Amino acid sequence: MQSILCHFENHVLTLSFNRADKKNALTREMYQQLADALIAAEEDPEVKVILLKGEGDGFTAGNDIADFAHRNEGDNVAEVVAFMNALCACSNPIVAQVHGVAVGIGTTLLLHCDLVYSAPESVFCLPFINLGLVPEYASSYILPRIAGKRKASEWLMLGETFGAQEACDYGVVTGIVPANQLDEHVSNVCKKLAQKPSFALKQTKLLMNNEQDAIQQQISTELDIFLEALGSEAAKEAFDAFINKRPVNRDKFK
Amino acid sequence: MQSILCHFENHVLTLSFNRADKKNALTREMYQQLADALIAAEEDPEVKVILLKGEGDGFTAGNDIADFAHRNEGDNVAEVVAFMNALCACSNPIVAQVHGVAVGIGTTLLLHCDLVYSAPESVFCLPFINLGLVPEYASSYILPRIAGKRKASEWLMLGETFGAQEACDYGVVTGIVPANQLDEHVSNVCKKLAQKPSFALKQTKLLMNNEQDAIQQQISTELDIFLEALGSEAAKEAFDAFINKRPVNRDKFK
Amino acid sequence: MQSILCHFENHVLTLSFNRADKKNALTREMYQQLADALIAAEEDPEVKVILLKGEGDGFTAGNDIADFAHRNEGDNVAEVVAFMNALCACSNPIVAQVHGVAVGIGTTLLLHCDLVYSAPESVFCLPFINLGLVPEYASSYILPRIAGKRKASEWLMLGETFGAQEACDYGVVTGIVPANQLDEHVSNVCKKLAQKPSFALKQTKLLMNNEQDAIQQQISTELDIFLEALGSEAAKEAFDAFINKRPVNRDKFK
Repeated sequence: MQSILCHFENHVLTLSFNRADKKNALTREMYQQLADALIAAEEDPEVKVILLKGEGDGFTAGNDIADFAHRNEGDNVAEVVAFMNALCACSNPIVAQVHGVAVGIGTTLLLHCDLVYSAPESVFCLPFINLGLVPEYASSYILPRIAGKRKASEWLMLGETFGAQEACDYGVVTGIVPANQLDEHVSNVCKKLAQKPSFALKQTKLLMNNEQDAIQQQISTELDIFLEALGSEAAKEAFDAFINKRPVNRDKFK
Repeated sequence: MQSILCHFENHVLTLSFNRADKKNALTREMYQQLADALIAAEEDPEVKVILLKGEGDGFTAGNDIADFAHRNEGDNVAEVVAFMNALCACSNPIVAQVHGVAVGIGTTLLLHCDLVYSAPESVFCLPFINLGLVPEYASSYILPRIAGKRKASEWLMLGETFGAQEACDYGVVTGIVPANQLDEHVSNVCKKLAQKPSFALKQTKLLMNNEQDAIQQQISTELDIFLEALGSEAAKEAFDAFINKRPVNRDKFK
Repeated sequence: MQSILCHFENHVLTLSFNRADKKNALTREMYQQLADALIAAEEDPEVKVILLKGEGDGFTAGNDIADFAHRNEGDNVAEVVAFMNALCACSNPIVAQVHGVAVGIGTTLLLHCDLVYSAPESVFCLPFINLGLVPEYASSYILPRIAGKRKASEWLMLGETFGAQEACDYGVVTGIVPANQLDEHVSNVCKKLAQKPSFALKQTKLLMNNEQDAIQQQISTELDIFLEALGSEAAKEAFDAFINKRPVNRDKFK
């Protein structure tokens, strides 16, 4: 079974996280498949819109910790970086449809989407700090700017969950749609986007993306610190505790 | 009858769009009159506050499409650019009073005002995409920064209307005031502003305007693409359809 | 009696404004004590979190006008600048607990805190314009970016009070907590922060603070104009009126 489903219809390329038994946690293989699909779509003039969604109970629980923890140092992040770059480089509008959990990169990737519609019950979380890690995917750049440092710090320093209304109030989510109407609403949005004049639509996106240089720089800065943090005792203990479902002894890392 | 009304009283210069039979759609003549009035006000030490409003049923339906479509290529935008520059160069606070429709530049000009009060029933729209065009007046710069890319993309990529509450929630509008109290509220705000110490008031505005270089650059970048888009088949068809009130055949431009 | 109380417990350094009979108005002495405490905390590896709060009925009424007005020109701002710099330079998260009034720098200092929790009844005010002065502490930079120019102009140009809900809606405040639960809520937040892995927490803050250069530049630009405005007739009259509780004759400074 494919862990990323690709479906193309009426100029809309839908990419679905399809690993529902693991809450759609993203493996290196899934990141690479997403990157490959996005790069191929960029070359295909028939593709006008990208739709990201999750199969089963939620969007995605984020990075697969077990998969991540077992990697060798050197190639820890090649696939996730390939995915990050491919998503940022999309010239077509990207729509995300969120339900259930959107954890870690499941939340931060939304910051690189153009339109995000969420069910009211969705739960967002940026738990990097709880793993001894730092924000990634330019979330430390984008979130303070759209939500203010006061709310962004709460999300990133406390690492607790927040709801769809809060995500919408602070600009992470475009709109909230009842769960039983979400498919139809997002489908209609994609259809409308596919019918807009192509030149104007791509240029509109390009004009709005005028912070890309600063965002790429921040992604790179974050990643250096992320990899340093990943080697720390705090992170090793947190990962080990996560995989073995043990509580972390925080006193050791204060 | 003047299509721009100028009224000066108690240090407040009120400029009213006065073409109610055409929903205050702005012609090249009106842009130039606005620019001239703003430039003259800048030289007049008696002027302390600028107030923009619309006569009749609404603020303004935006650019007059018929007037715009019939222009020769070379001088398509001289008057609107003169208006844009004059509004950005105002050293006095600019207050906008919005009721009814605020379409296209009727919405984007608000991004260059300092205080904007709206009736609850006002309707905003950034329909550039539907005409095969791209955002103007730095809206592609300012809107993602104040509303987040997720909401700004919805406004600019779908080109649908949105209400006063949404405009207020995302920073386009300062406050919502019941329609029957709007005149008095705005009048009181203007009176208060006119009574503030002049040096401090102008310097406060100047200090807050520290992104003007980037904004001017974006206005210029947008305009190049806007003019390119204006020559496209998609735009010609959309303009023609608008003027002749025909539906656009979108399939041609996908 | 100390006008700044310092309390250290469980890695949390609490600094309390303790001049309740003067609504915690800040004197040059208090600024210097705050600066000294923050600088010392920076050197102490046992400190993980800074908490700012006010004793008595409110957070702080801001700068002590009487103290400020009586200073000699040359040393007008040395202590407040020392405080501003020390707060910006904190590598540990800063939490603010707000109740009652937060006026002037009592509001602008919140823009340099990471998490701000407020009682629902708190009242915020940026009254610089009413004293013939201009915004300080980069509020003219930060507020337009987090609240939009339309709301920031209302706060800074009209200089009127606004409530906790508005402060929260526009990103000045992280969250609103009922007054009788505020102590406990903030205490829990501080405890959680103190237990996060130190390296990751400090790096998270550092990554989010990537606008510090522009903010420092704006603080400096504002200060030059602030000092110029301070010497104006409008400011002298306003200060004199404030101290003698007389109404200001605004007509003189229009």
